[in-house]
Amino acid sequence: MIRKYIFGEPIETGAVVMELPECDQEIAVMDLEVKEEMIRLSCRMDEDDIVYGLGEQVRGINKRGFSYVSDATDDPVHTENKHSLYGVHNFMILCRENRAEKKEKSFGIFVDDPGKVVFDVGETHLDELVITAEENCVIYVIEGENLKDIVKQFRKLIGQSYVAPKWAFGYQQSRWGYQSESDIRKVVEGHRENGIPLDAVYLDIDYMERFKDFTVDTEKFPDFEGFTSEMKSEGVHLVPIIDAGVKIEKDYPIYEEGVKENYFCKDENGKDFVAAVWPGKVHFPDVLNSKAREWFGGKYRWLMEQGIEGFWNDMNEPAIFYSEERLKKAFEELLSMKDENLDLNSFSHIKDLVMGLSNSPEDYKSFYHNMDGKWICHEKVHNLYGFNMTRAAAEAFEKIAPEKRTLLFSRSSYIGMHRYGGIWTGDNNSWWSQILTSMQQMPSLNMVGILYTGSDIGGFGSDTTEDLLMRWLEFGMFTPLMRNHAALGTREQEVYQFDRIPEFRNIIRIRYSLVPYLYSEYMKAVLSDEMYFRPLSFDYPEDSQAYRVEDQLLVGDSIMIAPVYTQNAKGRYVYLPEEMLMVRMKSPEDRTSQVLGKGHHYVDVALDEVVIFVKKNHMLPFAVLDENVKSVSDVDENRLEWIGFADEYAEYVLYTDDGISKEYIPQEEWKLVRRSKEELSR
Amino acid sequence: MIRKYIFGEPIETGAVVMELPECDQEIAVMDLEVKEEMIRLSCRMDEDDIVYGLGEQVRGINKRGFSYVSDATDDPVHTENKHSLYGVHNFMILCRENRAEKKEKSFGIFVDDPGKVVFDVGETHLDELVITAEENCVIYVIEGENLKDIVKQFRKLIGQSYVAPKWAFGYQQSRWGYQSESDIRKVVEGHRENGIPLDAVYLDIDYMERFKDFTVDTEKFPDFEGFTSEMKSEGVHLVPIIDAGVKIEKDYPIYEEGVKENYFCKDENGKDFVAAVWPGKVHFPDVLNSKAREWFGGKYRWLMEQGIEGFWNDMNEPAIFYSEERLKKAFEELLSMKDENLDLNSFSHIKDLVMGLSNSPEDYKSFYHNMDGKWICHEKVHNLYGFNMTRAAAEAFEKIAPEKRTLLFSRSSYIGMHRYGGIWTGDNNSWWSQILTSMQQMPSLNMVGILYTGSDIGGFGSDTTEDLLMRWLEFGMFTPLMRNHAALGTREQEVYQFDRIPEFRNIIRIRYSLVPYLYSEYMKAVLSDEMYFRPLSFDYPEDSQAYRVEDQLLVGDSIMIAPVYTQNAKGRYVYLPEEMLMVRMKSPEDRTSQVLGKGHHYVDVALDEVVIFVKKNHMLPFAVLDENVKSVSDVDENRLEWIGFADEYAEYVLYTDDGISKEYIPQEEWKLVRRSKEELSR
Repeated sequence: MIRKYIFGEPIETGAVVMELPECDQEIAVMDLEVKEEMIRLSCRMDEDDIVYGLGEQVRGINKRGFSYVSDATDDPVHTENKHSLYGVHNFMILCRENRAEKKEKSFGIFVDDPGKVVFDVGETHLDELVITAEENCVIYVIEGENLKDIVKQFRKLIGQSYVAPKWAFGYQQSRWGYQSESDIRKVVEGHRENGIPLDAVYLDIDYMERFKDFTVDTEKFPDFEGFTSEMKSEGVHLVPIIDAGVKIEKDYPIYEEGVKENYFCKDENGKDFVAAVWPGKVHFPDVLNSKAREWFGGKYRWLMEQGIEGFWNDMNEPAIFYSEERLKKAFEELLSMKDENLDLNSFSHIKDLVMGLSNSPEDYKSFYHNMDGKWICHEKVHNLYGFNMTRAAAEAFEKIAPEKRTLLFSRSSYIGMHRYGGIWTGDNNSWWSQILTSMQQMPSLNMVGILYTGSDIGGFGSDTTEDLLMRWLEFGMFTPLMRNHAALGTREQEVYQFDRIPEFRNIIRIRYSLVPYLYSEYMKAVLSDEMYFRPLSFDYPEDSQAYRVEDQLLVGDSIMIAPVYTQNAKGRYVYLPEEMLMVRMKSPEDRTSQVLGKGHHYVDVALDEVVIFVKKNHMLPFAVLDENVKSVSDVDENRLEWIGFADEYAEYVLYTDDGISKEYIPQEEWKLVRRSKEELSR
Repeated sequence: MIRKYIFGEPIETGAVVMELPECDQEIAVMDLEVKEEMIRLSCRMDEDDIVYGLGEQVRGINKRGFSYVSDATDDPVHTENKHSLYGVHNFMILCRENRAEKKEKSFGIFVDDPGKVVFDVGETHLDELVITAEENCVIYVIEGENLKDIVKQFRKLIGQSYVAPKWAFGYQQSRWGYQSESDIRKVVEGHRENGIPLDAVYLDIDYMERFKDFTVDTEKFPDFEGFTSEMKSEGVHLVPIIDAGVKIEKDYPIYEEGVKENYFCKDENGKDFVAAVWPGKVHFPDVLNSKAREWFGGKYRWLMEQGIEGFWNDMNEPAIFYSEERLKKAFEELLSMKDENLDLNSFSHIKDLVMGLSNSPEDYKSFYHNMDGKWICHEKVHNLYGFNMTRAAAEAFEKIAPEKRTLLFSRSSYIGMHRYGGIWTGDNNSWWSQILTSMQQMPSLNMVGILYTGSDIGGFGSDTTEDLLMRWLEFGMFTPLMRNHAALGTREQEVYQFDRIPEFRNIIRIRYSLVPYLYSEYMKAVLSDEMYFRPLSFDYPEDSQAYRVEDQLLVGDSIMIAPVYTQNAKGRYVYLPEEMLMVRMKSPEDRTSQVLGKGHHYVDVALDEVVIFVKKNHMLPFAVLDENVKSVSDVDENRLEWIGFADEYAEYVLYTDDGISKEYIPQEEWKLVRRSKEELSR
């Protein structure tokens, strides 16, 4: 049951695909107060209530005890006190399933407001949930049978998730700093020489000519099409980055066209708004305008014609290093202090002045979108920019390459963008705590339909260590997007840079053995509007202990994972909500297993081991690999083992397709596989 | 067995109090390489080896998997990637007790070098320990019976720890932002009205006149002596902050004297070095010079004469906001860019220029100490500054108030400073992860003799939440320094600002009931050169699981703690290395208990509960409190319960004294208390 409430004159965000009538009753689940053009919704939370959701945010699976602010932000330091990250996902569930007395029902709420929304989930008062939004918005309240049902209803409301090509389930390598053909050849060789499967290498900003979108530096890549094809023959896809800002440079066609056709965002005087990002001064394509969106999307064609089949859209909060206007003013102010005695106040002021130049709210107030005839200040629609940049690309792909899937994911996002692409979880750090953060983000991203996602494995900022990378891979191998990515200036972290290359190879090979299962579960989640990653409580609603577990996840129908995310740990505690088969793997071939009973366990997990827990009477397909498997296309789906344990037999619904076309297999044709207990591998 | 190795011409640091002959053999425990005036010590680490120590650093009790750099740094963001914090403690133990085959012995190593030392504890290669230092240093290698013995030998080498007055075991409240008498009266009233015990309120920088050391702003405190006395009659001690930098201000006597007597650090031209900190431009007292140290220490007298009995020394890395010279140069550079087209490079350069002004290594190279006749560049002795500032105070106290203890702790430190004062662990943040970090720092600080210590409870930077503060108190109540402290601009976090005042009161009252035990254990650790906080492995060396435990600590002889440090947790896993009595407390009076067997347990711990685990046949004194207990002096040591469990009887060695005088009770007079199992409380 979804109820829709309209306040003021909402901006059409594109989040929702389902037409619903406006509910003529009052919101029953929360207290509403409208004051000074703001909406305030509040309710009490019982001690045992849990808040799930809010997509890409810091803190736990249970979001209680903090405030979250919907304000897409390029902030690479994801410490616990950050209220906003890159994506904005205003959907949460107040879960009351765990209450001793179930007087009130759980509900989901989606605040469809592209401006700033604050979710105070018990920060001010531990027991009080307060949501504050501007008066112009649409609010959806969803009640259902259980947590899964609430999510499923919400997912139907916002439409089916984007489908990535199957090769994008392979291992992928990235680094800000790869400059040229030879750099990339070295990376591919580093993997191939060590027998490490690899399906993609990413092109970060340096492949471009002076950071200009839709250009390739021909000195570094003299024959880009040839190189793309050479890499493809190695089983490797190249995935270039596309940034939001278009460089201001005379005779650069995209700049010239955009100016001529008025496709860029405007300042208050109607001039093209000038910000600075990687290329220096840029204009922002007005992707909220349907014509500009179509134009910008069309620009991907040139790269696709050279063999590119995947992209990542970056800097689309949009990030602003500085705006021309603000920098000018700051400099004037600095100059005015020239002859002053520089005391502590002026020093602090200088620091604030300089550090406040980037991603300034003032800048976001100072430019405008032409939303198909209506001028709207960016501030009001800030959180829609990344969504629409990605929509621009995806809509163009439908024309450029309608027959096949194109890999696409974004840094910034808003609910609804999941129909067009995935996300990665942005510029994290090489911190152990970020393994847990990324685990905890997965179910809340899945709740809003973002299924193709993962974190920068090994950590983007700061220096990784071998053990951190290995443990992170042991979690990241379960995320659809499994990408090792690092920043310029940090320690090189391709797996072959370390001492334990055979161990890394084994772990990555386990991923490839799991691809039939992970891909099947991903596709089923897409096509059934379900979650690929789930907190334990979603599957075991009657188990009060399950609600407490913050560091284990269900992955698909058959397995639970409990990765190690602390340094020097040789094991960890695991809670089993039912009897399960613990399978310990050192490689796809080197496995041992053991049935563990429901309850608490301390489990040894060596640094180079992957452990999964298989539900009883469930099983998973596990590919038998050739020694020289190089990419997903080498995984033979006709050579499957079935891992599991059963009283009599285990069952599994297997989804398979060609991994490329968009003719997805309808549910009635999915294969139910059954194996007797004797036929199961362990 | 301690072996001493001398390299080059070491600077006398004052770390060590014991005269030892130089060892004429080679270092046996590590491979030595001397090259380009650097010493490189290295050895292999087995998979099961553990590295303990390094004092105040980030990461776990086991320091493996990261590099630690000895370089006292004012850095308030204690994320995992930080290589240096405020204090420098170059002592570590390579523990091999946990090896399957004990071919090699554990050893401790102390690198007595006041400059930069790098401990690469398996960052570059997981299995390799590499220590790099300058050639002029003294290295001590310590072998012993076991971990405790190695620590004890080291502690004898560096001398007996500072003893805090007993009132400093009470609850203490601080905030950067308390301005005046009336602010502080409000804080005291807030506690007293709610029946919350309180022994001290801190005066952060605003009590001073324009941030000048050893001044009091007479507008805010018109009768400081009278106010100090008024507070003392309320059972509250005022503890003012003292900063390292002395304001440059004409007619300010301390500035004038320091200039006249050449007591300040000099620049390369022999002029008093100018840096800027809170007061704006300052000179740094040359506390490495014995005369300047005596002079600066003597300045504490004026405050002590007005009734002050405790101090905290801050900003003594020393922190530098900027130096006069560098700021001038930076401004010149900024001005030179005036007419340039400001591109991305110049923008980045401006950012680096401004942000690089603070705590610049270049500044530390540009001033000098007169170490009793010898001029030494600050860079070479950087890590000794905080130590010697605190030594200045402590040596002065011996003259000013020789008969009694004065509370003293510092932000920066070096090994040896523990003889003069404690430390607090600096400007942390209101992050859940910092509870764990502070737990993990405690044993490594205890190893180097720093026993009077604790973290800023509730978190200094960023906004706390009620649950974070409560859980943090449930750990902080076991640290000798139990202080709630927060930064200007953050949420007010005195416990009475929240909804659960009775629960906070109960938790703080439990601390007061524990004071007889905690104080007794602290004094015994001081007088026996032992650790008050210990990892489990120190007491249970035969238990291989004990080596894995990173989030539980032994506190004194009788108890183990396992605080909850994750948000929304309603319990946690606890490992018991032997059968113990779990005592669960909602208040000193509201206790339940249960015997738990050796092994793994999941233990419920409600938000407002304190749980301790008592060793078998051990017990602890627990004070029966009056309803209106206000301060430590109200805790009646003649009204003790004895909590514990025993087969037949339990024993405890109780240390008591007046808590004020320096006539500590010698070990032979400590009381052995015995209670039969029937006499024990639970």
